[in-house]
Amino acid sequence: MPKNQVAGSLNTPVIVLVRPQLGENIGKAARAMLNFGLTELRLVTPRDGWPNPSAGPAAAGADVVLERARVYATTAEAVADCAHVHATTVRKRGVTKPVITPDEAGRQMHTLAGRHAILFGPERSGLETDDVALARNIITVPINPEFPSLNLAQAVILVAYEWSRIGREVAGGDAVLVQPNTEELLPPAPQEELDGLVAHFEKLLEQRGYFLPEARADTTYRTLRGVLTKPGWNHLEVRTLRGVLTHLGREPRE
Amino acid sequence: MPKNQVAGSLNTPVIVLVRPQLGENIGKAARAMLNFGLTELRLVTPRDGWPNPSAGPAAAGADVVLERARVYATTAEAVADCAHVHATTVRKRGVTKPVITPDEAGRQMHTLAGRHAILFGPERSGLETDDVALARNIITVPINPEFPSLNLAQAVILVAYEWSRIGREVAGGDAVLVQPNTEELLPPAPQEELDGLVAHFEKLLEQRGYFLPEARADTTYRTLRGVLTKPGWNHLEVRTLRGVLTHLGREPRE
Repeated sequence: MPKNQVAGSLNTPVIVLVRPQLGENIGKAARAMLNFGLTELRLVTPRDGWPNPSAGPAAAGADVVLERARVYATTAEAVADCAHVHATTVRKRGVTKPVITPDEAGRQMHTLAGRHAILFGPERSGLETDDVALARNIITVPINPEFPSLNLAQAVILVAYEWSRIGREVAGGDAVLVQPNTEELLPPAPQEELDGLVAHFEKLLEQRGYFLPEARADTTYRTLRGVLTKPGWNHLEVRTLRGVLTHLGREPRE
Repeated sequence: MPKNQVAGSLNTPVIVLVRPQLGENIGKAARAMLNFGLTELRLVTPRDGWPNPSAGPAAAGADVVLERARVYATTAEAVADCAHVHATTVRKRGVTKPVITPDEAGRQMHTLAGRHAILFGPERSGLETDDVALARNIITVPINPEFPSLNLAQAVILVAYEWSRIGREVAGGDAVLVQPNTEELLPPAPQEELDGLVAHFEKLLEQRGYFLPEARADTTYRTLRGVLTKPGWNHLEVRTLRGVLTHLGREPRE
């Protein structure tokens, strides 16, 4: 799969909010979706109808998601075109299904062909047994059991995040580190530059009796060398330190 | 380190909100923390003072986090006892630091000994350059570049989630502890020891005109700070360097 298609529409999951209550929470869910490139939102009988004037401000700019949102009368209709339905819930239900984590769900979305839908229940009560019955899996966020109160937008963002994270992993073979500063992250300076720095330290310190007593001079030198070798400074950093040492070699002005 | 201590309190990171604006967002951040078992919240000069009556309702039951929250006058004081400081930011800054993802950060928190602190900036503006200068790493959530508007509580929950997820992975034996807390590999010195070292350099260099011209003094200071922050020296190494500086402050013998 080419890297630039990982976030493409083919394996982008559909987010289904089942009987959401507050327009504000629909807006926040839309924002969380778009943060990680998800744009397809479906609403099953939102309590206050649709569109909802409270959704827009809460979406903080994710209007494209709200504008494209579609409303369905039942959960079954909302997922009719999907090959894989996952139900999010923190509580164990009377339905026996495989329970998977968001990262496993993210992996399935990138590896199992066909459209994936993820169901999120109403704010207070969560999904009903009949909604969960439509799903193949239950996604449960492994949360602090003593404080499992996860709000709707936070549940959405964790699932969207994992879809995105696993997508990069699948595309890159390994977990991809974002390195926008790559050009500035220079490799460590060549050893001869480090040697020059150590020698500069050594010269100034010798003049000031740092390596005395003589019997311990070798150990003292090795310790200093070790401290200066640890950082892996690049050549700009070594140059900065050479400037520092040049100044330290001067007499104080006062 | 026994496996069952991996997710214990010793390597539980500290969440530092730098100059947060709305009490409501502090409450939501506390809720996100407790969802994944984080309880230590530090606040740097919250705009509306502390305690803030808007925080409690937004915390939705995470009162224990708010009650234990401590307030600091500066970011440096808030992280003085921490060995690893990570700054979260979406934007590229004038500071050159390694940029890591939340999952890599979660891995470091479980594998690098010493306390970890994670800095989150104010809602609108994000962290200042001087805050970022205190950190060893920058954590950037790999987000939709066309919609990078991530709110404070969402940024907190993603970092807390990854800390928890990687902790389970490490506890399960899947990940390798790359730097166990052995006697040979001491953790980085607490930030206050590093601050002492930087101040020692600064004092000697000021006396020798290093920070001139005045107009560039801030940049020069940040560059030096960056070079000295990079290594993660342990307290023995910092002590060695303090000895070096004491000697460099003396007049040469010849």
